[in-house]
Amino acid sequence: MTPFADRLTDAVLALRAPACVGLDPHLDRLPAPLMAGAGGREALAAAARTFCLGVIDVITGVVPSVKPQVAFFEALGAPGVAALEDVVHAARDAGLVVVLDAKRGDIGSTARAYVQGTLAADGPLGADSVTLSPYLGTESLAPFLGATDEGAGVFVLVRTSNPGAAAWQHGADATDGIAGQVADWITASNTTRLGAHRFGPVGAVIGATLPKEAPLWRARMPHAWFLVPGYGAQGASATDCRGHAREDGLGALVVSARGVLYPSAGRAGDDWKDGVLARAGAFAEDLRRNLLG
Amino acid sequence: MTPFADRLTDAVLALRAPACVGLDPHLDRLPAPLMAGAGGREALAAAARTFCLGVIDVITGVVPSVKPQVAFFEALGAPGVAALEDVVHAARDAGLVVVLDAKRGDIGSTARAYVQGTLAADGPLGADSVTLSPYLGTESLAPFLGATDEGAGVFVLVRTSNPGAAAWQHGADATDGIAGQVADWITASNTTRLGAHRFGPVGAVIGATLPKEAPLWRARMPHAWFLVPGYGAQGASATDCRGHAREDGLGALVVSARGVLYPSAGRAGDDWKDGVLARAGAFAEDLRRNLLG
Repeated sequence: MTPFADRLTDAVLALRAPACVGLDPHLDRLPAPLMAGAGGREALAAAARTFCLGVIDVITGVVPSVKPQVAFFEALGAPGVAALEDVVHAARDAGLVVVLDAKRGDIGSTARAYVQGTLAADGPLGADSVTLSPYLGTESLAPFLGATDEGAGVFVLVRTSNPGAAAWQHGADATDGIAGQVADWITASNTTRLGAHRFGPVGAVIGATLPKEAPLWRARMPHAWFLVPGYGAQGASATDCRGHAREDGLGALVVSARGVLYPSAGRAGDDWKDGVLARAGAFAEDLRRNLLG
Repeated sequence: MTPFADRLTDAVLALRAPACVGLDPHLDRLPAPLMAGAGGREALAAAARTFCLGVIDVITGVVPSVKPQVAFFEALGAPGVAALEDVVHAARDAGLVVVLDAKRGDIGSTARAYVQGTLAADGPLGADSVTLSPYLGTESLAPFLGATDEGAGVFVLVRTSNPGAAAWQHGADATDGIAGQVADWITASNTTRLGAHRFGPVGAVIGATLPKEAPLWRARMPHAWFLVPGYGAQGASATDCRGHAREDGLGALVVSARGVLYPSAGRAGDDWKDGVLARAGAFAEDLRRNLLG
């Protein structure tokens, strides 16, 4: 299989939009027509499935990537997880690059079970990539390198966009502390795995709300795709993400979830797909102009 | 509802055994009779369910707590998650204190979705407690405090038992770095939430393989129950866990999974429950003698 970083880069270049739409099926924001009569977890999971499949349908050809957030599906139990499987499979069938947002992290045989549950081609999801939380150390990340050698990708949390993250992720300087050590592991892992576009399969999560830090992280991880949350709803703009990218504008996969999925207030009505399409188009165009223009 | 720490402490005292059996349904170790003809994820999930329900049946009254590892269930997709729901509900019905080992961590509405999916009484699992990974900072932990105020508990990763953990969790001293900061957050959270036994609802994961560090962590988190993995298969003994406990011997919930579930080699046969019962009894007795004796 084509290496993950090449698939992602090619998909971004084909649409000229380093955009990833987060699939966060908030039950209190889903379009009103989908919620009619939905009680119980089975019916709510069906509404989440219908919504996400509809989103995938309208954004295909507009953005190259989607990021299903597993927490919203898991909150609905087994029916929700069954819906997640359908959503991931539909996204892959549509040619979208799937970033499974699960922030998993464990060691040994448990880590291998997480590989099976998220990335493995013969597993229930077979996602293109997954987000990982590195608190447990290199032993929690290394088991995923085998999957990257078979064409998958990962995005490891390095510096997140929430205000409280700095105190624990930083040392005295931005790149001291655990975040800097994780970054160095990412760079070492990518160096021996570079694809055609000079990116490796091990990406990093770097918040969009950190425009001053971003160039430091780009220099420290020259071959990593960055997954960049915090655009829109969390207050960051496309220009805030320039320092996350390489000089050629590639390397920053910017995420928007609520800003694309939902109107600014309330629930959408029968024309909900039109709204998603319009907002996804504006999101892609904003990134195109400011990052790749 | 009785606060989590009091439920756990009372359960440990009732059996005089601070023991937690990990429920890790390794497909390559499940008893041979359960695997006869099992192919496909539905059948494999059924085997995992039957095994875990059988383990719960025989260890009730021997140990006070179980720790289902979600990764092994998620590896089987939606049927595996349905099995996990049955296992958690059966354990709660049997009066076992459930530690859901999920190591979740995210922020905002995603964190709240994880609360719903793991601890919420009206959620799919309704576990007594869940393990959390703190990389994202206090915003990833604080949403769970609401659930603790309704009777649930959490165990936050602080110092894990794997050899590579120290480099990222430590600063120059053992309690410097991110681990020490997480510990201080735990202590601050417990101080206003102490139960009858002077424990709060926010526990810490401290590996059994760290007997020299353990007293430092106990002093820094005087009111936290410690979840202590690493006994047996990872090389630590019951006496290695003494420094994890308070002077009265309480406060260290020691975990054994493979050492209780499976024979030392190969698959068990038709008498597999007898083996689980014998090993669980020996595990509980070892902790009783060395920690509470």
